[in-house]
Amino acid sequence: MPELRKDPIIGRWVIISTERGKRPMDFKREKKEVVGGFCPFCLGNEDKTPPEVFAFRDPLSAPNAPGWKIRVVPNKFPALQIEGELDKRGNGIYDMMRGVGAHEVLIESPDHVKSLAYLPEDHIESIFWALRDRSVDLNKDPRFKYILIFKNWGEEAGASLEHSHIQIIATPIIPKRAMEELGGAKFHFQLKERCIFCDIIKQEMEVGKRVICSNDHFIAIAPYASRFPFETWVLPLDHISAFEKTNTESFSALAEIMKTVLQRIDTVLDDPPYNFIIHTSPCKTPDLEYYHWHIEVIPKLTRVAGFEWGSGFYINPTPPEDAAQNLRDA
Amino acid sequence: MPELRKDPIIGRWVIISTERGKRPMDFKREKKEVVGGFCPFCLGNEDKTPPEVFAFRDPLSAPNAPGWKIRVVPNKFPALQIEGELDKRGNGIYDMMRGVGAHEVLIESPDHVKSLAYLPEDHIESIFWALRDRSVDLNKDPRFKYILIFKNWGEEAGASLEHSHIQIIATPIIPKRAMEELGGAKFHFQLKERCIFCDIIKQEMEVGKRVICSNDHFIAIAPYASRFPFETWVLPLDHISAFEKTNTESFSALAEIMKTVLQRIDTVLDDPPYNFIIHTSPCKTPDLEYYHWHIEVIPKLTRVAGFEWGSGFYINPTPPEDAAQNLRDA
Repeated sequence: MPELRKDPIIGRWVIISTERGKRPMDFKREKKEVVGGFCPFCLGNEDKTPPEVFAFRDPLSAPNAPGWKIRVVPNKFPALQIEGELDKRGNGIYDMMRGVGAHEVLIESPDHVKSLAYLPEDHIESIFWALRDRSVDLNKDPRFKYILIFKNWGEEAGASLEHSHIQIIATPIIPKRAMEELGGAKFHFQLKERCIFCDIIKQEMEVGKRVICSNDHFIAIAPYASRFPFETWVLPLDHISAFEKTNTESFSALAEIMKTVLQRIDTVLDDPPYNFIIHTSPCKTPDLEYYHWHIEVIPKLTRVAGFEWGSGFYINPTPPEDAAQNLRDA
Repeated sequence: MPELRKDPIIGRWVIISTERGKRPMDFKREKKEVVGGFCPFCLGNEDKTPPEVFAFRDPLSAPNAPGWKIRVVPNKFPALQIEGELDKRGNGIYDMMRGVGAHEVLIESPDHVKSLAYLPEDHIESIFWALRDRSVDLNKDPRFKYILIFKNWGEEAGASLEHSHIQIIATPIIPKRAMEELGGAKFHFQLKERCIFCDIIKQEMEVGKRVICSNDHFIAIAPYASRFPFETWVLPLDHISAFEKTNTESFSALAEIMKTVLQRIDTVLDDPPYNFIIHTSPCKTPDLEYYHWHIEVIPKLTRVAGFEWGSGFYINPTPPEDAAQNLRDA
C-alpha cells in the first residue's frame, strides 16, 4: 500500500510508493559524454565573460586574466537586469514591476570537466566563502528582497553550459517557495515555540533511518515527504536562519558534507543531472527564531514531473528510507 | 528590460523576458518516431488491462472486447490503491495516511498513433463526457476529496505509454495547487465580491492581445503571468465552479475549443510534448461563487524547469502576448 505523507513545513502531501520502490539501477540512463568546444568559463577566456565581480586568484595576477581559482561574473544573458528602479505598476487586475535584479555566475574552477563533487575539499570551502561574500554584498542593495543561489548540473537539470557553475539571482520579490516555507515555519513556531527544522533534525537523529551522514556542524537527510527519488537536504545543526550568517568555523564542515553528499549521489546514481538550491531567509531580516537555512539537493531522475508542478501533487517512486540507506552505504 | 508579473490568483511572480523573447522555432527538437511494439491500450488487447469501468462501445459488443471507441480502465500500476480505509496517523512531527484512492486511465481511441488533437470533434466530445461520468461517479466515494484529471503527451511530458490517454486520480487530500487557487480566489471574492476568473476573462476580452480563440461557451488565453512558453488556459465563459457541472449543451463547444488549441499548439510547435490538467473544485462542495473551473495546457519546451519547482520562481522566455499571436495566426 502506498503512503501519503505530509511535508511538515509547507503542508504538501506526497505519494510514496513503498512497495515496488524504484532502486538506483532503475534510473540508469545513457551516459552523457563531455562535448567540449569553446567555453567562456575556461582558463584563458576571461575576456569572453562580463568583468568579474569577485575572484579567488593568485595575488600577482590581474583581474579578468588567468591565475584564478574561482570567479564570479555577471551572467551574460541575465534573467534580471541590474540597472534601474522597480517602477511598480497595476494594469487592471494585474500587477507588475520592471525586471530589476542581479544575475551572477560563480565559475567553480578553471577546469572544464571537473564536477563540484570531485574538487578538493578546501576548494569547495572557498566556493561557499565566495557565495557568502556575494550574498553579503547583494544583501546591501535596497532593491533586493531575496538572494537565490542554485546549481543546475547536467543538461536535463537545466544547465546550458557544461563547465560546472553556480548561479546567484538577487530578486526584488521573495520567491513563492521561500514565502511558503517562511509562513509554514512561522506557524509552527507560533504553535510550539520551536523551530520546525530543529524539530526535524532531532526526530531524524533519533530515528536514524533517513539520515545519510553528518559531521560536527551539519546533517544530511532524505526528507520524510521527499518529492523526488534521492532528494537530500543538508541542514546546519545549529539554529541559523540565513546562509550568510553561518559561523565562519563551520564552513569547512559545510564543504565536507556537500562533497560527501554529491560524491555519494554520483556513485549511487552514476553522475545524474541534479539541482541544488540554498534555502535562506530574505534579505535584511534579523535572525529569525522560526527559520533555519538549508540546502536541498534534487537529482533529476524521473520525467514524471510533467503534471506535478501543475497540480502540486507529487508521486515519489523511491521511499526516502531506501534512498538514505543507499546513500549511507555508498 | 524583462518584466516581473504577478499571477493574480495565487500571487506567484514570474520573470517574462520581453526583449529576446523565444519564438516557436527556438524550441525545435528532434522529432520522435512512433516506437510501436506491444501496447495494452490497442484494439484486441482488452484483456491486458484491468476490466473496464466505463466504455463507449458498440451496443452489440461485450465489455473488455473489441467494439469500443473509448475505454476507461483502472491503472495497472496505480499510484493509489482503491481498497481500504485511510488510517490517518501521526508519527512524531510527521503526518501520514494510507495511499487510498483511485487511479484510472481513459484510452482515447483504439488507434495507437492518433493524437487527441486529430480525433474527430464528436469523438473528443465523447471523451469529455466520459471524464464527466467518471468524475460524477468518483465524487460519490466518501473517502475522496479531489478528482485530478490530467494528460501527459510525449515522453518528456511524463507519458510512459505512447498510445494517447488521459489519467484520472481521485485523492483523499486536496492537492496543494488546488488549495492555493481556491484560497487565492476566495480572498479576491472576499475583497471584491467578484470571481477572479470572471475578472480575468473580462479584462482579456477587452485587451484582446492574449486571447488565442473563443466560441460561444469557452475562451482560450495565454495567461498574463504564464510560467511556461505557450502556456494556454481554456475557461468556460459562464461562471461554473466544477468541471462535472458544465452545462451539457456546452460539451460540444469544449471539444471544439480543445481541438483548436491542441491543433494550433501542434502546428506552431511541431507536436511538442505537453501536459494538460483540469482545475476544478473539490469533491462534494456546493457551487462556489469564487472558483471557476478551467483547463491549463502546458507544452513542455524548456528544460529550465530544473530549479523552478524548487524555488517557485519561474523564468519564461516567451511573452504570452507573442505566444497568443503565434497561436492565433496558426
